[in-house]
Amino acid sequence: MDKSPKFAVIGGGSWATAIVKMLSENVDTIYWYMRSTYAIEHIKRQEHNPNYLSSVEFDNDQLELSNDINKTIAAADYLIFAIPSAFLKRELDALTVSLEDKIIFSAIKGIVPESSLIVGEHFEEFHHVPADNIGVITGPCHAEEVALERLSYLTIACTDEEKAKIVAKNLDSEYIKCKISDDVTGTEYAAMLKNIYAIAAGIAHGLGYGDNFQSVLMSNAIKEMKRFIKKVHKMKRNINDSAYLGDLLVTGYSVFSRNRMFGNMIGKGYTVKSAQMEMSMIAEGYYATESAYKINKDKGAKTPIINAVYGILYEGKNPKKVIKKLAEKLT
Amino acid sequence: MDKSPKFAVIGGGSWATAIVKMLSENVDTIYWYMRSTYAIEHIKRQEHNPNYLSSVEFDNDQLELSNDINKTIAAADYLIFAIPSAFLKRELDALTVSLEDKIIFSAIKGIVPESSLIVGEHFEEFHHVPADNIGVITGPCHAEEVALERLSYLTIACTDEEKAKIVAKNLDSEYIKCKISDDVTGTEYAAMLKNIYAIAAGIAHGLGYGDNFQSVLMSNAIKEMKRFIKKVHKMKRNINDSAYLGDLLVTGYSVFSRNRMFGNMIGKGYTVKSAQMEMSMIAEGYYATESAYKINKDKGAKTPIINAVYGILYEGKNPKKVIKKLAEKLT
Repeated sequence: MDKSPKFAVIGGGSWATAIVKMLSENVDTIYWYMRSTYAIEHIKRQEHNPNYLSSVEFDNDQLELSNDINKTIAAADYLIFAIPSAFLKRELDALTVSLEDKIIFSAIKGIVPESSLIVGEHFEEFHHVPADNIGVITGPCHAEEVALERLSYLTIACTDEEKAKIVAKNLDSEYIKCKISDDVTGTEYAAMLKNIYAIAAGIAHGLGYGDNFQSVLMSNAIKEMKRFIKKVHKMKRNINDSAYLGDLLVTGYSVFSRNRMFGNMIGKGYTVKSAQMEMSMIAEGYYATESAYKINKDKGAKTPIINAVYGILYEGKNPKKVIKKLAEKLT
Repeated sequence: MDKSPKFAVIGGGSWATAIVKMLSENVDTIYWYMRSTYAIEHIKRQEHNPNYLSSVEFDNDQLELSNDINKTIAAADYLIFAIPSAFLKRELDALTVSLEDKIIFSAIKGIVPESSLIVGEHFEEFHHVPADNIGVITGPCHAEEVALERLSYLTIACTDEEKAKIVAKNLDSEYIKCKISDDVTGTEYAAMLKNIYAIAAGIAHGLGYGDNFQSVLMSNAIKEMKRFIKKVHKMKRNINDSAYLGDLLVTGYSVFSRNRMFGNMIGKGYTVKSAQMEMSMIAEGYYATESAYKINKDKGAKTPIINAVYGILYEGKNPKKVIKKLAEKLT
């Protein structure tokens, strides 16, 4: 028993809470870091997260909660990061424990704004974590449906297949099916890019475009995603696998997606600033757009959708005109 | 002026009405056959179809309405068929005029039940129309959004590129963008198969599966569609083009899709018969399922979704068990 790897989850939001729930089906003790002492105290007393997925009941005997990230990380072998990418650096700056010998799986969908790197690359570059110790947990998966125990599929990517298998085994359950992949870079970029396409879908919706246009936008988006990822990391992959296409669809078609909602407000005439102020948190896709645009400037894939969203969000271009022009380029 | 080709639309439903509207942006006279004399009289008096897309206003100067299919067909060069596939044979049986020298475009998404053939093949086999005179008009396109003049994309497929271009040119407008294709067989099978996948999506929804599962189902469906079509007609095609993936998405994600609705009722426990009785018309995908299953029996593509829907609709298998088993096969 003592030889089973120890898992830590970093984050107190809905996706982190969903991952703790998944692990709790298999793992005796989950080390769980979150910032909010209020939430920790509440979970200790009431056995559910007061802020996110509050219908999910936990068994406190399984949880080692802490708001000291160093304590949580020191105790575990596998660290699953599930905090917004915008907060990652702040958390990592507080680290005093070494990440050497830790295996790090990112459940973050986005770009670290300070480094403009996807999460795996950020850990490699700034924390000297070897690539073989870095993995990705990706959907298509709304946390809310995990709470309801609705059948969901995850893809666990790591260049070290054994590590992917261990994570998959510990997340698998009656309602979670994990498959493994060796495309760490591709799945992570897909998870990031889909947020940009969800913003595009939202903007179009806000402008009054309908379902016919949305389906064409999604068809073009998956082709654009394929071109982009191929430039960043060329390998044999089927872009229609659920980690790429499925993840795009679950976000692009979700009316609850923060990114789609953000786009929708822009389409309806909000400025970027006012849309951000209306939302309690900045949509991941906002940062992703800038990074993807800049990364691709060198790489040179044809990315009319990313370029359109970039023009609207960062160059103050008129959404109506930009989407009209984009529509001419779609097929 | 007299050299421009003459267009006829066969059908009085919403898709036929939408196509007449598209043509009316470009064509002086549209020959329009529909069965209902009541509807014809109503259009003549009120300038809109009383039964479908009634918000669309027509100019009677542009319409040559008739409930005599022979008269309509005799007058035109290009015939666009937009009636449910289940009624096609009945209409064709009434033909006394020759189809020789006619150019036939099918806007029907389905299989002709009596011949188990897709529409193009049916015309070729039973009416000796040469393959070069046969084309397909395919979405992704809800007729309702054409009525609202929401930007929509069509694919016009014909092995004779010139004919595809002529149809495209006459359907194109501010809100309709047509692209052409030479994949007549592939686009027609895609349009038919998507209805089966929409039934599958409906069944899963009816059983309580959520959006996470739906996105995985769609990812698997497009891969299955690619395998199926490749067996039927091998050629270079990008299955993520909007005529294939887009068309799948607009139907699979539509809560208004008759096929998805039919599936939903099955998932909720209706028998096939009672679900059919509840709906005013049988969903196209019902016939498509049997045909696709049988066609593929020889061809041997891996089609777990089609097989599952077939089992439920034609072999009386338990939907809950079948979808649970299907879920094991999805990735």
